[in-house]
Amino acid sequence: MTRILFFCERAEAAQWEEAFKKAAPELEFRNYPDWGIPDDGDAIAFVWQATPGLLKKYTNIRAIFSLGAGIDHLTSDPDLPTHLPIIRMGDDGLKEGMAEFAVWSVLTLHRRLLEVVENQRTANWFQFFAAAAADKRVGIMGYGALGKSAAKALLPFGYQINTWSRSPKETEEGITHYTGKDSFDAFLANTDYFVCLMPNTPETTDLLNKETFAKMPKGAGIINGGRGNLIVEQDLIEALDSGHLSGAVLDVFKKEPLTEDHPFWAHPKIMITPHIAAITRVDTAVEYVIRNLKRLNDGEKPENLLDLNRGY
Amino acid sequence: MTRILFFCERAEAAQWEEAFKKAAPELEFRNYPDWGIPDDGDAIAFVWQATPGLLKKYTNIRAIFSLGAGIDHLTSDPDLPTHLPIIRMGDDGLKEGMAEFAVWSVLTLHRRLLEVVENQRTANWFQFFAAAAADKRVGIMGYGALGKSAAKALLPFGYQINTWSRSPKETEEGITHYTGKDSFDAFLANTDYFVCLMPNTPETTDLLNKETFAKMPKGAGIINGGRGNLIVEQDLIEALDSGHLSGAVLDVFKKEPLTEDHPFWAHPKIMITPHIAAITRVDTAVEYVIRNLKRLNDGEKPENLLDLNRGY
Repeated sequence: MTRILFFCERAEAAQWEEAFKKAAPELEFRNYPDWGIPDDGDAIAFVWQATPGLLKKYTNIRAIFSLGAGIDHLTSDPDLPTHLPIIRMGDDGLKEGMAEFAVWSVLTLHRRLLEVVENQRTANWFQFFAAAAADKRVGIMGYGALGKSAAKALLPFGYQINTWSRSPKETEEGITHYTGKDSFDAFLANTDYFVCLMPNTPETTDLLNKETFAKMPKGAGIINGGRGNLIVEQDLIEALDSGHLSGAVLDVFKKEPLTEDHPFWAHPKIMITPHIAAITRVDTAVEYVIRNLKRLNDGEKPENLLDLNRGY
Repeated sequence: MTRILFFCERAEAAQWEEAFKKAAPELEFRNYPDWGIPDDGDAIAFVWQATPGLLKKYTNIRAIFSLGAGIDHLTSDPDLPTHLPIIRMGDDGLKEGMAEFAVWSVLTLHRRLLEVVENQRTANWFQFFAAAAADKRVGIMGYGALGKSAAKALLPFGYQINTWSRSPKETEEGITHYTGKDSFDAFLANTDYFVCLMPNTPETTDLLNKETFAKMPKGAGIINGGRGNLIVEQDLIEALDSGHLSGAVLDVFKKEPLTEDHPFWAHPKIMITPHIAAITRVDTAVEYVIRNLKRLNDGEKPENLLDLNRGY
């Protein structure tokens, strides 16, 4: 019998336990701190922000599942047992949530709804025409499971879709793929709305800054559903204030929760969503863990396996 | 040579003339007031809010095309030549625009983004979980060309889709159709987000009122992209204030522009878009007029032909 060693202070463990019992009664669910003896029995960890050092201590753990798509909450543990397979979350709930966020945010920028919200505050009935979706270019930065889900949801609206990723991806109909550092400037110059879904790595930190904003077309908009490390926040404010960029929808920030005095809150060209773009859903996440545990047991490669050299 | 007699004070006529010249050089474009002699040559009218009595005077007109999907701006003319075929607009631009508005508005209600906007005003970082789309029911009220376009755009998100219309429509996969007055209460009881795309007729006036709101499930939301006559505005405010309804996204109103002192502007559960949900686009509208003029010439029934007995 495999034990699931669960750790997430933000979640209702009973809900997760029930979902595992229903879907795979052969697994034993143990919520922290009731993990039992560190070397007793076969176990996997399923965690969000576990106490540093804890995972190393439990030598019965043979794989670590993350409750989120990001893994900053794991790699911040200096004692993370990196020799184990570490699996990022990629459940359907997360993919659906990000697709919803991406579509809502792109429409908010394309249909100029930040201005509409501002105008409502002053009871200002101001009408305007929006461009056709087919005349607008959406660029997905970071083209993993979530980026693919966002692109698939945006395609039916008729937008031109670009993607930018580190390594080449398969070619898909209706999508223009840009790959690697050499194509980054071309990607920037040919995109109107940037949907950023990048992981937090040294390479992505401060990637969107005054220089890269300047390479985007005038009127471009920024959507960040990935990680807050990507954007130099003061540079974004300056690019919006100068009128070079038209708006931003931001779900993630350098420091979360966003402090009360942060200038983003009151900025008329910024829409803030408090890191709610995509949330791991119990039903689909349990299904995901069970499916990938089976892959591990069968000697197959699990989905979204962390590659520490890449950093995601 | 057929003349297009154009009348729209809000439009740039030169843009329309150019588009017609490019797409069908054999047509002669005439912008009001330069319509020429009332009984001279073969003509069709293509109008938005023409001066009352004008269309009757031009006896060379053999068909009237509306610049919008609604026809209130035509039927308000007591001298409207009702013996002529009157064709409502149904161009792809209008359909795409309404699909965008419907998806954006449903996501706004489903993902609780009205609260997010409110929270931003007070720098309040408040996180919450949203339901899965599959657990939410979207009901399209009025299932013509625009309703179909909205339903098609909403389906991929996984929502349960209901429709309600006066007359039976073909059955479509993934959609539950409600038809006629007898099924209205069942439609109301089984829908979470109402996407209202009804024409302005005596039957639709005040159809959403305190009694019909009470038949909706607690927490339901209202989206109106059709006509403002549909909703008893004071009843909507009361249903929102009591907490029975959760929110509304409104593009149309009893009186437009909405007056500065209207209580909708400052209501935290109402998002106001100033009648911009779907706008006739020059390129696609010109294509639509040309296509339907050909149908008329060939003795075929044009698309979206007005039936004055139904009122749309």
